[in-house]
Amino acid sequence: MAMHPAPARPALSGGPLALTKESRTALRPVPEARITGGLWEARRAVNAGVSIPDGYERLAEAGNLHDLRLAAGTAEGEYANAGCPFMDSDVYKWLEAVAWQLGDPATEPERAERFAAQVAEVAELLAEAQEPDGYLDSYYQVVRPGSRFKELASGHELYCAGHLVQAAVAHHRTTGRTELLDVARRFADRIDAAFGQEEGRIDGVCGHPEIETALVELYRCTGERRYLERARYFIDRRGHGLLPGGRWGRSYWQDHAPVREAEAVAGHAVRQLYLLAGVVDVSVETGDASLLEAAERLWEEMAATKTYLTGGIGSHHSGETFGDPYELPSERAYTETCAAIASAMLSWRLLLATGRARYADHLERVLFNGFLSGVSLDGERYLYINPLQVREGHLRDEGDHTAFRTRWFRCACCPPNVMRLLASLPHYFAAAEADGLVLHQYATGSYAADGFGVEVATDYPWNGRIRVTVTEAPGADRALALRIPQWAAGRWTASAAGEEVDREAVADGWLRLRRTWRPGDTVVLDLDLAPRLTAGPVQADAVRGCAAIERGPLVYCVERVDQPDGIRLDELRLDPAGPLGEGEGPGLPSGVVAVTATGRVAAAPDGGWWPYGEVATASDAGAAETGGPGAGAPAGSVELIAVPYHLWAHREEGPMRVWIPLAGTGV
Amino acid sequence: MAMHPAPARPALSGGPLALTKESRTALRPVPEARITGGLWEARRAVNAGVSIPDGYERLAEAGNLHDLRLAAGTAEGEYANAGCPFMDSDVYKWLEAVAWQLGDPATEPERAERFAAQVAEVAELLAEAQEPDGYLDSYYQVVRPGSRFKELASGHELYCAGHLVQAAVAHHRTTGRTELLDVARRFADRIDAAFGQEEGRIDGVCGHPEIETALVELYRCTGERRYLERARYFIDRRGHGLLPGGRWGRSYWQDHAPVREAEAVAGHAVRQLYLLAGVVDVSVETGDASLLEAAERLWEEMAATKTYLTGGIGSHHSGETFGDPYELPSERAYTETCAAIASAMLSWRLLLATGRARYADHLERVLFNGFLSGVSLDGERYLYINPLQVREGHLRDEGDHTAFRTRWFRCACCPPNVMRLLASLPHYFAAAEADGLVLHQYATGSYAADGFGVEVATDYPWNGRIRVTVTEAPGADRALALRIPQWAAGRWTASAAGEEVDREAVADGWLRLRRTWRPGDTVVLDLDLAPRLTAGPVQADAVRGCAAIERGPLVYCVERVDQPDGIRLDELRLDPAGPLGEGEGPGLPSGVVAVTATGRVAAAPDGGWWPYGEVATASDAGAAETGGPGAGAPAGSVELIAVPYHLWAHREEGPMRVWIPLAGTGV
Repeated sequence: MAMHPAPARPALSGGPLALTKESRTALRPVPEARITGGLWEARRAVNAGVSIPDGYERLAEAGNLHDLRLAAGTAEGEYANAGCPFMDSDVYKWLEAVAWQLGDPATEPERAERFAAQVAEVAELLAEAQEPDGYLDSYYQVVRPGSRFKELASGHELYCAGHLVQAAVAHHRTTGRTELLDVARRFADRIDAAFGQEEGRIDGVCGHPEIETALVELYRCTGERRYLERARYFIDRRGHGLLPGGRWGRSYWQDHAPVREAEAVAGHAVRQLYLLAGVVDVSVETGDASLLEAAERLWEEMAATKTYLTGGIGSHHSGETFGDPYELPSERAYTETCAAIASAMLSWRLLLATGRARYADHLERVLFNGFLSGVSLDGERYLYINPLQVREGHLRDEGDHTAFRTRWFRCACCPPNVMRLLASLPHYFAAAEADGLVLHQYATGSYAADGFGVEVATDYPWNGRIRVTVTEAPGADRALALRIPQWAAGRWTASAAGEEVDREAVADGWLRLRRTWRPGDTVVLDLDLAPRLTAGPVQADAVRGCAAIERGPLVYCVERVDQPDGIRLDELRLDPAGPLGEGEGPGLPSGVVAVTATGRVAAAPDGGWWPYGEVATASDAGAAETGGPGAGAPAGSVELIAVPYHLWAHREEGPMRVWIPLAGTGV
Repeated sequence: MAMHPAPARPALSGGPLALTKESRTALRPVPEARITGGLWEARRAVNAGVSIPDGYERLAEAGNLHDLRLAAGTAEGEYANAGCPFMDSDVYKWLEAVAWQLGDPATEPERAERFAAQVAEVAELLAEAQEPDGYLDSYYQVVRPGSRFKELASGHELYCAGHLVQAAVAHHRTTGRTELLDVARRFADRIDAAFGQEEGRIDGVCGHPEIETALVELYRCTGERRYLERARYFIDRRGHGLLPGGRWGRSYWQDHAPVREAEAVAGHAVRQLYLLAGVVDVSVETGDASLLEAAERLWEEMAATKTYLTGGIGSHHSGETFGDPYELPSERAYTETCAAIASAMLSWRLLLATGRARYADHLERVLFNGFLSGVSLDGERYLYINPLQVREGHLRDEGDHTAFRTRWFRCACCPPNVMRLLASLPHYFAAAEADGLVLHQYATGSYAADGFGVEVATDYPWNGRIRVTVTEAPGADRALALRIPQWAAGRWTASAAGEEVDREAVADGWLRLRRTWRPGDTVVLDLDLAPRLTAGPVQADAVRGCAAIERGPLVYCVERVDQPDGIRLDELRLDPAGPLGEGEGPGLPSGVVAVTATGRVAAAPDGGWWPYGEVATASDAGAAETGGPGAGAPAGSVELIAVPYHLWAHREEGPMRVWIPLAGTGV
């Protein structure tokens, strides 16, 4: 194996999307992006120092590595994960996380050495396990060797291959090494040769998309256009009934309609969004505008009708699928952590492709809420599902579907997915446009492209001040674009070099300041983080009569542990006329801002054995109050404390809710 | 095989519960119960004339009979239902339905002959399939012969055995024949000998309860007390961790806590209620009051916190399980038809055991709503799940989980379960107490016990008048008890022999008239069926700000097909101050009463790509209105038409909702 060879093709950026010169996008990732302070820096340090090292132990303990050793012939015994044909992918996602971490200058040398040794060990194992023809999938090598590429709906072979490719590309990008890339290419070549509409090939698609976006990245990494063409093939052939209708219908794997014709996101949420990520990737590399159009249309349908306030998606436990439009029950929100990650990946791609601020707005919402809730502050426990409500009397004994923080899962897709996103996160924060720099997410750090660099200092999201200092400038006219978040529209001020910026300078969500910048020039953006109450759409039955508390980009929740003793969370009402205040988050890390509000307690009347009762019809419909067992009389006021949703279930695993019924509406 | 031998033991009643003289219950089923007119007669005629004959064809088509023939060695080929170890039970439930039908004098002779021939054919098949040691389960005979009684959690062997016993007992009760009973006893003996805590036996319980209640009935049928003791064993040993924690936790099969200690219904709804039915059965035969107490406590917890307005139970698609208290989302109500049937079976048992009217109230609600919705008017299509809402834009492609009426299912538990309940339904309608007759459900028919008989004439539930005429009387003091439904409290009048009955005569939901009745004496009960609006409990977020329409025992729903053109159901609001009227059900059978109400259309504002927006905080909390994207301005009034919920999806498979948001509440 060659040591540190030159990259097969120079990458234009070092992150998960290394666009080529031919890529047709409005924005590009910046080659230099570092997060050096604040919330994300702290989370990333825990990710590198705790989660990723722990991940190796967990993968060993769960038998993922053992199963690969069985394929390599270097271990004996039973296949550890016999019912699960997708366990290799968790090894690959973990490898990808390690690879990004190896490219991060903040990774301590000793840790980097240990990571490099682990990668070397696993890469050697993979090379040993790989068949001479390039095939590599421990499940189909050990458990079902006669069924390779024959169980495409549920077999996850191309899904696993895709994650192998992503890990290998990341490793190559950050280290220049090729031992993983060599393995990945051999398998990709095997797949490329096996699939297609030509005589003698398999005309099929994988039940779980992932290979599409991986093959585009492999194309970007190697310059081999056939990988791009094979990705296009997999996208074009989907939706033509090549997969069977299973327990959850053909929509489960997005095979019910070709993506260009689909009118709505459907089926398994992660599959849908990984597919759309690949759709955007193929579109920007091939120039096929119909693909980008489809992705934008489906994204909008999802955001407008199928997304929780936290940015979480996928309502259904059963099938991990999207629900119907506005089917967004809080307590039964599945909102898998992996789906939030997929959503972030898609929104980022659409942002780059189009330059539209909505995608960056959504990326921010997902990152700070539906994604970040998925991993604990200590980096040791995860949420697979991220509900917006845990009821009084919640049954803890829910098997795989627990709503509480867990060390690892039988199907452990989420933890290593969290690791790889956090490890690559800086790349998601800034972008370059034709003649300028775009700061679309805010975190202390440094971002630079094309000789134009800035440092950002901020305590965001706890504080709304974002100070940008130019560190290098080409001496020519350049634009510095700052996103004005959707929630901050009209509630911000900014100054450039001490002079107030005209608010009219904002267009389509971007504050774009164009001038000949000099090192030391500063821009200060102040976003008003005053807490606010948010209502849901009228069609969302689950949140009717309720409000949620938000502050800046953060969604808040109330947990029982913070409320006065004896108050049942189900009986708490929010007084929308009461003041909203700010304070320390009790029992939470220093700096975390909690929100206070005025609550009332609506003691539920004793409805006896049957809880339904007659509505009292008032002559004035405008003042209609439900009576009988349906109504609770508001009692005295209480101070209600809300904490950031992403920090729930850290102090007590008890009742929680994001949406709080409003007092005084009579319902 | 002996022809028409004397019953092994004289039954005291002919229905599904043939209590013994030792049974400790407040009420007993009446030996003579016939439904001869009205809604239930029509449904039962379709059941006998269409559904049951069709069931035989479907069972043949789906391979259930073929699989038994494989076990008998009279057919060759693959096991048709390889992934499903419970398919024999559908044959048994169908057999049970046929058996009850054979005991119904309304069954036409020609049809009875055909039924008898089919039973004979299947009974012979079962006798052929049965092993010399009594074992009989096609799945474990054909597919996994080495795993008999080794996969108790998921194997369904005792569940299937229980249904075999129930069918055999029914067949014996209605025909006196023993060919099925002989098979069932041999298998029951095999099970009795195999299980127990004694050395050399299997100390275990079946993942799916059913054997418990079946063994009690076999005890009642044969007088063999060891069957009762084995039923008690299965109940006592549950909740001690004999089953593994599976995908949905140990509560899934009610093995998380012994039933006497359980505080709440939990897990798979049908399993929980079949278990509790057996708990009541064992309690009334053994006199173990702790079991009855547990069943009553768990029933009340279920009714008060986990039951939909339709009487449906089991919120979760995933695992077909109960949700948390008040977790009752309308669109994602699983509310399996089998769970409604299980609920009716349990409520009936508790009614007999205790004499409490609440159980009859609940039985009525379940029968007319959550159960009856499960089968179409033509008897040819079924609902497996019975949601209370179908949204605009509902995805049809849901595989096994479709919300629309379907001919048969891959897991076809519900259709033959519907058949057996309808076939045995008259037994559920009246009861005998120490010195009188209890009419707790209302349908035209005749009911008699101990020389005291009545005829009931009514067009209930369309009309509230129930006329009871005494047809035979013993010439001594007897009580005639009529249930005053909970929903009719204070809204009824009655006369006996032309004289008005004092309303104070009602105690605990029963109007009990005691006198020396003479043939020809009449009692007329008039229940006020005026439509009413119902509210949900404050803790039920899913129905906050909504009302449902009820009329008598029926829950109503609105379907898009009945509303003015162009109205989206999600935008419809109900004016609680508007009048409620009655009319013909458009496109529904003559006699069906529809309800009209005043609706408003709250056009949803265009929220753009993000549907959440700020709540406008008003200074007066009492008048708080949600603003921004959350609010829709009420527009003009429309006449809204509601139809009985059990008739939904008969004319159009479109949007539907039971709970309608109230206009004028600002939410």
